[in-house]
Amino acid sequence: MATIQDIAKHAGISIATVSRALNKPEMVNVETRERVMHAAKKLNYFANENTKLSNVKNKKLSLGIIIPYITAFYFGELYSGISKVAEEHNIDLLLYELKSQHMSNEGISKALSFVKQRMVDGIILASCHVPGDYEDLIEQVQIPIALVLSSHENGKLPAFKVDDIRSSFDAVAYLVSRGHRHIGMISALPTEPERSEQLRFRGYKQAIDFYNLPYSDSFVAFGDMRFDDGYVAMKQLLANNEKIELTAVFAASDEMAIGAMRCIHDAGLRVPEDISVIGYDNLSVGTMTTPTLTTIEQPFGQIGSESVRHLMKVLTDSGQVTGKGNFYLPHKIIERESVSEITLSAK
Amino acid sequence: MATIQDIAKHAGISIATVSRALNKPEMVNVETRERVMHAAKKLNYFANENTKLSNVKNKKLSLGIIIPYITAFYFGELYSGISKVAEEHNIDLLLYELKSQHMSNEGISKALSFVKQRMVDGIILASCHVPGDYEDLIEQVQIPIALVLSSHENGKLPAFKVDDIRSSFDAVAYLVSRGHRHIGMISALPTEPERSEQLRFRGYKQAIDFYNLPYSDSFVAFGDMRFDDGYVAMKQLLANNEKIELTAVFAASDEMAIGAMRCIHDAGLRVPEDISVIGYDNLSVGTMTTPTLTTIEQPFGQIGSESVRHLMKVLTDSGQVTGKGNFYLPHKIIERESVSEITLSAK
Repeated sequence: MATIQDIAKHAGISIATVSRALNKPEMVNVETRERVMHAAKKLNYFANENTKLSNVKNKKLSLGIIIPYITAFYFGELYSGISKVAEEHNIDLLLYELKSQHMSNEGISKALSFVKQRMVDGIILASCHVPGDYEDLIEQVQIPIALVLSSHENGKLPAFKVDDIRSSFDAVAYLVSRGHRHIGMISALPTEPERSEQLRFRGYKQAIDFYNLPYSDSFVAFGDMRFDDGYVAMKQLLANNEKIELTAVFAASDEMAIGAMRCIHDAGLRVPEDISVIGYDNLSVGTMTTPTLTTIEQPFGQIGSESVRHLMKVLTDSGQVTGKGNFYLPHKIIERESVSEITLSAK
Repeated sequence: MATIQDIAKHAGISIATVSRALNKPEMVNVETRERVMHAAKKLNYFANENTKLSNVKNKKLSLGIIIPYITAFYFGELYSGISKVAEEHNIDLLLYELKSQHMSNEGISKALSFVKQRMVDGIILASCHVPGDYEDLIEQVQIPIALVLSSHENGKLPAFKVDDIRSSFDAVAYLVSRGHRHIGMISALPTEPERSEQLRFRGYKQAIDFYNLPYSDSFVAFGDMRFDDGYVAMKQLLANNEKIELTAVFAASDEMAIGAMRCIHDAGLRVPEDISVIGYDNLSVGTMTTPTLTTIEQPFGQIGSESVRHLMKVLTDSGQVTGKGNFYLPHKIIERESVSEITLSAK
């Protein structure tokens, strides 16, 4: 098995520099780093990583969290889950916001390098859809990565999330069980086809088909997941409501659901008496509104804690980096006040 | 003026190690670091820092943000202000949550060291009341620190915040201008006398005295700043309300104000028709409730952006580290739906 001596020889670089390039890459210039990485890969050095990782057992671990939209309400709920387990295991956490305009391969790559250089042992990458074509990058980062609230196209990274399609199907199924048939949706903007938010639209549509419910394009309005977007989207649905006669709306986020409720209120209608609303997330803000919000719970706490446990296992176990692909955590329906039952005669 | 050569000679350590201890302290053991610091201080080396700082001009800056209660709603608002300016100036940000149980001198000290070691050029320390007696620590950290939403007892650190006493006085004055005289308060727990939250109670009490309003201990209930606390505190105020006849309540945070509104609703009363509520913060969630929340705005965005601008100035100007003490940013009253006017005849 290759040693760093072998790499030094192969790359024609001093042992100290090789060691630095592998362990403190930020202290070495890019060219040297790449020569070392190239040699290391060629000599299959990383099969040795296991030994190195087991040394980690005796040190205090740090994890980096990269997250876009750190100001979105769900961030707090996710972070609580992560930090609870991190605290139990005396793990330090560092947070870095990925600006939405940097949500590209290059942007994610830069963010991973930046955070890695801040001496973390593993990284939780939240809400970033990771396309299959930058496996090189992931390999280069050389510390374990776990995805939360998103997934990797080729399933090569462990991903902790809910099943967006199934949970959205269940939201509609719940409304159907309460007697609703004219069910609209406030969906995420259709810009990024593989992101969670788009999968929620697919779940809605599958349920519409499954239950053979009335449907046309006017049943759906789009927004960018925040309160104001929900308000505007609901306004659009109400503008058509003489024609489509919605009795219930499923919103792809709690923020949009709460915006929709406010819009219904401002239009002189009542939630749930005139229109029922079901959200998606189960943010604490849904308990603060009047009426309180019925919603699909994403178990943010569990998603966060499972991702930390996974990384700890990878870092402290004797190295078997097992468990790639998607880990679906269970969603559930939280019944509050914003959905009413309609009887057959009332329909 | 002393050079690092002088320090090396004085401390009996190699020049390279001195340089490392000053510039990359995390790479040097504690003992060596302390020897170097001791010699550096003795030789008045830091008068030279100006030169070093001006070199910073040519490098990409990073700032660390240390914040407790990262899951509180106001975090997002504050971070937005910080990140907007940071982005304009291509500054990287790293976030670290200080657990509330570590909110001690030792805890803050550890957090500052941890973040500093992550290669940041300056630190924003949010919502941590900094007692005067750890100036040593601050000196040891050796990178600029700015406080936001809190202050330093001896005023030796720049602090960006609102004037809690005056803004709370103004909240009561606003209610008085709307015809209210029986005004209660939902205040923070009286555990930490010098924290912002306690200053708000003082502002309330000053206004009560100034306007000669009715008052007894039953006019005030306490909570820990969150939604549920506001709910419970309001319940306590309502239990005494036959006696004290409150027509308005000032809550020391928007979250508590929203909890209070919900409690009033659940008691079968209406906001603002039966009881008016004014909050404190101006969080976006206050636009999502029904009725929307009238509140005192803390200019979180401005507080965040001013703290970044200050640190940039310190880091890139040719070194005059001016501007210590408190910088008060202007609060204002945001009028929405949760306060009604009562006429003299109705009182």
